Order: sequence, then structure tokens, then C-alpha cells
Amino acid sequence: MSVLIVGSTALDSIKTPYRENRRLLGGSASHAAVAASFFAPVKLVGIVGDDFPKRYVRLYRRHGIDLEGLQVARGKTFHWAGEYEINMNNRRTLATELGVFETFTPILPEAYRQAPFVLLANIAPALQHHVLNQVRRPRFVVADTMDLWLNIALNDLLKLLRRIDALVLNESEARQLTKEDSTITAAKKIHRLGPKYVIVKKGEHGALLSAPGGTFISPAYPLKRVVDPTGAGDSFVGGLIGHLAASKGSLETNLKQGMIYGSVVASFCCEGFGLTRTTRLTRDAIKKRVLQLKRMLRY
Amino acid sequence: MSVLIVGSTALDSIKTPYRENRRLLGGSASHAAVAASFFAPVKLVGIVGDDFPKRYVRLYRRHGIDLEGLQVARGKTFHWAGEYEINMNNRRTLATELGVFETFTPILPEAYRQAPFVLLANIAPALQHHVLNQVRRPRFVVADTMDLWLNIALNDLLKLLRRIDALVLNESEARQLTKEDSTITAAKKIHRLGPKYVIVKKGEHGALLSAPGGTFISPAYPLKRVVDPTGAGDSFVGGLIGHLAASKGSLETNLKQGMIYGSVVASFCCEGFGLTRTTRLTRDAIKKRVLQLKRMLRY
Repeated sequence: MSVLIVGSTALDSIKTPYRENRRLLGGSASHAAVAASFFAPVKLVGIVGDDFPKRYVRLYRRHGIDLEGLQVARGKTFHWAGEYEINMNNRRTLATELGVFETFTPILPEAYRQAPFVLLANIAPALQHHVLNQVRRPRFVVADTMDLWLNIALNDLLKLLRRIDALVLNESEARQLTKEDSTITAAKKIHRLGPKYVIVKKGEHGALLSAPGGTFISPAYPLKRVVDPTGAGDSFVGGLIGHLAASKGSLETNLKQGMIYGSVVASFCCEGFGLTRTTRLTRDAIKKRVLQLKRMLRY
Repeated sequence: MSVLIVGSTALDSIKTPYRENRRLLGGSASHAAVAASFFAPVKLVGIVGDDFPKRYVRLYRRHGIDLEGLQVARGKTFHWAGEYEINMNNRRTLATELGVFETFTPILPEAYRQAPFVLLANIAPALQHHVLNQVRRPRFVVADTMDLWLNIALNDLLKLLRRIDALVLNESEARQLTKEDSTITAAKKIHRLGPKYVIVKKGEHGALLSAPGGTFISPAYPLKRVVDPTGAGDSFVGGLIGHLAASKGSLETNLKQGMIYGSVVASFCCEGFGLTRTTRLTRDAIKKRVLQLKRMLRY
């Protein structure tokens, strides 16, 4: 079944201690869509400017991503520039140029409205609401977010929590939202705000799912070298929803498996700048690493 | 089979954002010995002053810990005072009073020298060497360490690495020792310094084993509330060696299981000040949490 993904479609200029790359294809929706495309057909909702490189449109197409919902507007594509510190764990934003994103109103093509699986990738909660208003009874809606929205759009976000099945956020955001140090206690509090499923991302340490059936610990694949972690979280949730859309049977079991798949796609994402490593992936390469990860947990 | 444990035996004054407790039983050997005692008979090597409370001697005895190797010297017991920050991840040392530890020379009673399993808990590498010099062909030797010894006794530590089967250290120490950001790359480098088994502790995120048979990811039990993390790492390695001493069959498999058991004892340790929670443990409570943790990994 297909996955509808809305989020940012951007150009990323990324500096690490080792290298710098300008105007790579980036944005939460780009990473999530490419990740999901290895598992299920993807319908992308986003906006780019008339400066958006044709090669990136071709890249989306190579992954079979439906672009009917990608608006091309006059003006500049959203541009983000950031720099990572030596251990790759801390990053600072050097520039955020919203461009055409400033006036973005997502409009869903008719064919998109029936999508059974919806990923509201990281983007302003008001836009996530706007997309939800246009879909018809989706089976499963997962939303990602970031600290920025906790700071400037908390009310919109809290309203969103009552409309979604699963929330994905990282450890520090979970702490910020709930004032709880413990991930597991924070997740319990977030359930009370709405989502039946809460997924807390811990970067290189994996992720944790809190669900009606209990807690699930999803470890990360240990990497020999991190080249660029940008988009890893988006790849994780993209892989997750893609796997979910492709699977039959128990939703909760599929969600757990989806976290493992998402975690593996995210690990590949970190091995190259922007989407360069992810786009070269195959389902076989993903499956192989999933098995490797499984072996690392066996005792 | 029995486990010989050498390390610090101390009085800890611990301050957290919520409470303060003075002169608790602490030290790497105390935590490790109590943790190991749930699995195997323990022979303790350490030193305390004549101010060492009798109730702590009784506590050791209740856990069946052999105290023939515990010296009681004239003077003050090693005292450590520390304070945790709000999220319990950062701590600062307020006082370190070595007392009788300053002149400690571990002397092994005859009955100790045959111990098949040896844990060199965190203590100066010179003392770890001194103990190793006295044991006769142990089956398995694991050493723990800390950043202090990397800073002031690196040569002693490097020599020790050539004499042990397994090294346990935390993430930042692995980075400091190898100048590698990646845990897995750091572990590979540490193998070349001697130990066949390298265990990198990641606190609340679990631990990673690098072994000839591959990598093993040992997750931590997610806690609802951390009361005091002091001694968690020592409890982890104590539980690990205790399980190892109690198990037959493949060493590497036992080591993996031992990490799970150690991780569970460490999780209990964090739920009380000093050793207060750990000492109230039972094998059944440990087994129950091991099963819970196992369930959290199933998908």
C-alpha cells in the first residue's frame, strides 16, 4: 500500500570536520521518501523553487516517488546550512533560508487523499494539520517533529497529538515536552497527550517504542564511521512507515520490525553526505544489514 | 566457580538534585562483589580503615562474600564525595580522601590464588598488576578502568591490557584511549592492544561487546526513574563475571548472557542510593527483569 509523505524538500549545505558539500538534496520529506521507497510506493507532498536542480527531480523519479503533490513555485528552494562538531553529535545551524517554503500551503492531489499510510515528516505542525484535513480516513498516521516546534508552535503540536497514531521525537525533545528525564516515563506522559504509539529516537543508541503491548528497544546498527548524520532521523521514520505499508498482520509487530528497518536505512544514510549513500541502496543491502543487526542481538 | 574481585572499598557521600546521603558503602569492589554474589561465591580483596562501620562488614557477609582478603588498617577508609547534575548524567567529584588506600598493597590469601575468574575492578593499574602477579593461571581475567588511569597511569594500563582477557571501559574512555569516535572502530583498536574481548559501556544506552565471534549489542533496561547511578558500571561488570563463573559451555555465549545479567543488576543499582537497592535483590528479581528485557527486544 502507498505512503503519503509531507515535509520539507530542501537544499542542504553541510559542513563536517572533514568535508563540505553545498546544495545537496535534503529536507525531512526527501530523506523520508527515499527511505520509504525501498518498501512501498511513495506520494510526496512538498514545495521547491524554480532553482531546484533537475537532477534531484530525476533522483526522486528513479525511486518511483509520485511527484504530483510536489509544487514548483517561483522563487528559491528552502536552503539549510549547518556544521557538525568533531564527534558528529552536535551541530549548529549556519543559515536557514525558507524561500518558497514561507508561503507553502500543501494541497493534496485527488489520488493522494486515499493514502492509507501517512507520514507527517518534520515540518510546521500547522502544515501537518493542513495535510491531515485533506486525507480520508487513513489507516495509520505518524508524525515527526523537532525542538523548534516545541518552542514556537507548541499549541498546534499538542492539537496534532490528538489526531495521530504515532509520534516520533528525539530524547531531548521528549524531555522538553514532558519535563521528564526518563525516556520511558516521558513516553508514558506523551501517551496521555494522544498518540497510542510513542517512538523516542536516541541517535546512535537506537530508539524506543512505547506501545499498548509494552516497550520495544530498537538498537542502532553500530557504524565504523559516520560521514554525515543529516537526515538519519527522517530516514528512520521513512523506512519505518514504508515497511509498515508493505506488511500484513499485527500492526504492533510490523511497527517493531519497521523500526529495525528504519534504523538500518538511517545507518546507511549516515555513511554518506546528504542522500548520496541512501540513493545507492538496494533492498538486498538493507536486508543483509537487518540480519547482521539481528545477529548482534542474539545471545 | 569462585570469583576473585579486587578494587576500591570505600565510603561514598552522594548528592543528587533530590537527596544527599553520607558515608554509604561504596567503591568499585563493593558494588562488583555484591552484584557477583547473586551468581557465584566471591572472594574480596581490598582495604578499609578502622572507622569502617561494622554494619558494612555484616552486609558483605550476608552476601556470602569471603573477606579473608579484606585488610583492616589503622586510619581512615577511602572516602569519595560526589554530586550529580539534574539529569543524572554528569557528576562532579567534591572530595577524594584516599585514607588507608594510599599505602594499599593487595596481598592474596593462599585460598584466593586459585580463583578461576578474576575481576580487576576499577583501581590503579599498578594494583591490578600486583593482584595478577599473585594468581595462578586463572581461566578468565576482566579489568575495568577509568579516565583517571588513562591520564596518570597510561603505561601501567597499556601493560595490563596485554595480560587480560577482557577490558571494560566506557565510551568516552574508549575514545580517549584510541582517538576514535566510533565505538566499534575504537574496540577494534583496543583488541590490537591485547584484550580478546572489549566491552564498551554506554550507561543508560547499554553496552557493546567486540569479540572474535562478532559484535554483540547489550541494551540497558529502561528505567522509570534513576535515583543514583553510582556503582552502576561496577555492578554491571560484577554481574557479568558472576554469571560467567556460574555458567558452563561457550565462553562467548556466557559473556553475552553475562552482559544482560550485569546490565539488569546495574539497572537495579540505579534505583537506590549506593548499594541500598542492590543488597535487597534476589536471584528471582534479577531473572524476572532479564525476561522483561528479553521481551523488549523481541519483534
